[in-house]
Amino acid sequence: MAEKKLVEAITSMDVDFAQWYTDVVKKAELIDYTSVKGCMVIKPAGYAIWELIQKQLDDRFKATGVENVYLPMFIPESLLQKEKDHVEGFAPEVAWVTHGGLQPLQEKLCVRPTSETLFCDFYKNDIHSYRDLPKVYNQWCSVVRWEKETRPFLRSREFLWQEGHTAHATAEDAEARTIQMLNVYADFCEQVLAMPVIKGRKTDKEKFAGAEATYTIEALMHDGKALQSGTSHNFGDGFAKAFGIQFTDKDNTLKYVHQTSWGMTTRLIGAIIMVHGDNSGLVLPPLVAPTQVMVIPIQQHKEGVLDKAYELRDRLSNFRVKVDDSDKSPGWKFSEQEMRGIPLRVEIGPKDIAAGKCVICRRDTGEKYEVALEELEAKVAELLPTIQRDMLEKARAHRDSHTYVATTLDELTQVFTEKTGFVKAMWCGDQACEDKIKEDLAVTSRCMPFEQETLSDKCVCCGRPAKKMVYWGKAY
Amino acid sequence: MAEKKLVEAITSMDVDFAQWYTDVVKKAELIDYTSVKGCMVIKPAGYAIWELIQKQLDDRFKATGVENVYLPMFIPESLLQKEKDHVEGFAPEVAWVTHGGLQPLQEKLCVRPTSETLFCDFYKNDIHSYRDLPKVYNQWCSVVRWEKETRPFLRSREFLWQEGHTAHATAEDAEARTIQMLNVYADFCEQVLAMPVIKGRKTDKEKFAGAEATYTIEALMHDGKALQSGTSHNFGDGFAKAFGIQFTDKDNTLKYVHQTSWGMTTRLIGAIIMVHGDNSGLVLPPLVAPTQVMVIPIQQHKEGVLDKAYELRDRLSNFRVKVDDSDKSPGWKFSEQEMRGIPLRVEIGPKDIAAGKCVICRRDTGEKYEVALEELEAKVAELLPTIQRDMLEKARAHRDSHTYVATTLDELTQVFTEKTGFVKAMWCGDQACEDKIKEDLAVTSRCMPFEQETLSDKCVCCGRPAKKMVYWGKAY
Repeated sequence: MAEKKLVEAITSMDVDFAQWYTDVVKKAELIDYTSVKGCMVIKPAGYAIWELIQKQLDDRFKATGVENVYLPMFIPESLLQKEKDHVEGFAPEVAWVTHGGLQPLQEKLCVRPTSETLFCDFYKNDIHSYRDLPKVYNQWCSVVRWEKETRPFLRSREFLWQEGHTAHATAEDAEARTIQMLNVYADFCEQVLAMPVIKGRKTDKEKFAGAEATYTIEALMHDGKALQSGTSHNFGDGFAKAFGIQFTDKDNTLKYVHQTSWGMTTRLIGAIIMVHGDNSGLVLPPLVAPTQVMVIPIQQHKEGVLDKAYELRDRLSNFRVKVDDSDKSPGWKFSEQEMRGIPLRVEIGPKDIAAGKCVICRRDTGEKYEVALEELEAKVAELLPTIQRDMLEKARAHRDSHTYVATTLDELTQVFTEKTGFVKAMWCGDQACEDKIKEDLAVTSRCMPFEQETLSDKCVCCGRPAKKMVYWGKAY
Repeated sequence: MAEKKLVEAITSMDVDFAQWYTDVVKKAELIDYTSVKGCMVIKPAGYAIWELIQKQLDDRFKATGVENVYLPMFIPESLLQKEKDHVEGFAPEVAWVTHGGLQPLQEKLCVRPTSETLFCDFYKNDIHSYRDLPKVYNQWCSVVRWEKETRPFLRSREFLWQEGHTAHATAEDAEARTIQMLNVYADFCEQVLAMPVIKGRKTDKEKFAGAEATYTIEALMHDGKALQSGTSHNFGDGFAKAFGIQFTDKDNTLKYVHQTSWGMTTRLIGAIIMVHGDNSGLVLPPLVAPTQVMVIPIQQHKEGVLDKAYELRDRLSNFRVKVDDSDKSPGWKFSEQEMRGIPLRVEIGPKDIAAGKCVICRRDTGEKYEVALEELEAKVAELLPTIQRDMLEKARAHRDSHTYVATTLDELTQVFTEKTGFVKAMWCGDQACEDKIKEDLAVTSRCMPFEQETLSDKCVCCGRPAKKMVYWGKAY
């Protein structure tokens, strides 16, 4: 009974996906709400996932020459206002500091919603010559955007992220870095988070405030909605001109730098939940599972059982492994391990010990294996990468089976009335068509994918000649 | 000439230690100033040191059962006010957010100067039973204190730190954790930063706002001033009573938890500079040196030299190693490597290659070794821990030779008139004496050390019976 209760407390994902999500986030102890409206506590189980994301993403950054820095969390109002599009995009949603200590400030400061303006202010003094380029800096920090509606990990007033900000001598170098980082993101999502993504470019309507071009990776959640999972922006020399960031080039002439920025956030944890989770709770890809293997002793009060469990744990020390030696029942422990998304559980009881074996159970498929004790390490070493691979393939199959095609506005309307998923459609490039589809169907253009197809030669909306294929979807 | 300039640009530490510090911080490219008064940019060379500190300190935390979390950066005014001593201590120096987006906030929020109140608010809902205890949480984040006078790393309006916050079932458990973490800090400073510290307890006058007891580690800088390098606080059940954090104990009665907090900051980078630096710049202990070995090719335009330099780098890949293959002169490179505090440099030129050897030079002592190329890895593996050890011993010798004893107020006055260092003196325990010494001599009580000595039986100030030996010093 006790075991059942833990699971029954979760809403079924088919009944109410939003409630299922909230239930998992709470029951898997990833977050807690706080007295600060719109802000959350990231609890140990959630933060440990973030640490694994950080470590593996940061290693990939550094392999491409990225250096980490830390810039202030405050931006003076005058600095935020230097780039016109940028301030228009962000001013409505920033938090303002007006008093320091007991004194009113001479100039109010916003808490950074993103740090383009601060990096520009810094680069202006730090870059003088072509020898100083490129600058490929990144910071891990928190940012604040005063959102009206919030959801754990997906949209909160404060969130954690990394923001890369680079400066280059030429437009080509900036574009190459923009695409390079998008590829790092896409590869990270697929290889580490087991989450397939569509790479593409945002339409001008959807691009970042102040950017020349915004590239994105878009993932499909289990409920068919789209999640923007990482973005990479090419600013051209727009910010450089607004902030006066110039360098002396090899030919001894003064030139403006070309800049990029790119970011990923704790939103990725929301993506992991919504791509891989099921009605028993979280399902974690092994590479971001804080505990990869949970050893659960059966009849642990019997002599030798706990000792054997600890012995198995010690033998598995190449992995992230724990023993659940609490005084709960095995069934309760199974449910907890499932709720928390731990990839493998190892069951060991008196009968197993007598037979020289144990039972290994996969979280992603529920498959069970009887394994001779001497083969334990080898079996775990084989299963973890198998799970990682299978989870990616399962997510890819789900994404592909929820990707549709529409060649007319009627078809587009019908698909979005009946289904939720990605819809591919041709577009003339005119924002009026994009606006109309968004208003009529309550969906947004996700991106113009790098892998273009010719579904028809006409715009899905107006029938004029098509220029691009676009992915459409309902956004988180 | 060019080489000389780089070095000449630094003020000698004996002429003006404060200016020397500022010069090193700038020339070693650790920080830059910003448009945000009192806030700094931590540049790649500085942030890489912080990453090494974080990693090694975090590993030590986790070995004692600490779990990382993340709490919001904002504290509602009403929450800050719940513990009376605490709000009095911090309210005068916090930054206030009064507007979110375009709207004034109903309740103003301060940017966290420290997070006791947030952790209490969280624990209040998270702790119910003795089974939920202990909670041993930590977060890595930035905090804001609206300081009037600021100095890079030592005192800035925003700084990076870790703050541990724990809750325990008994007063004994809380005290044990407070001391345990102080010992982790002290061990970390000695073993990793090569910086000896005095462990002790703060007087009531100097303790943390809201704490029952504050423990500290105090280090002596090269100029004889003291730097508080880490603190660990025991709150007893004061915060628990203010916030109502209760649990049902094994005996089925409701009890208040006992709490601790402990923190270390980017100030440690300032300590590294001021303990180990010299007139050529920074001197980094190998364990926190982002680059441990710099290979510098001599006559690098000659055939085979650069290839040999890269080969040596590859052979040293167990260490953090780089080749300086820039087009600067070797002398300039030497000066830069010295300024940046890189522990070892390996010189390799055509004559060395012909002779099958290279030259290794230690940053800390300037000693040079001719080393046969086949012994390079072994020599580097031997030298790095030797440097680490020698730097600790050198710092300890300096600290000990700048620690004085005073048994009368005249002696105390004389020592602080003629010298700068730690002064040990007996104290009656009366705050009036502490106040008088502080006012008259412009020094503060650093701590009542765990290792007590009996220098005399009388208070250095009033002559009444002494209760404690106290370390005095001029503080940063």
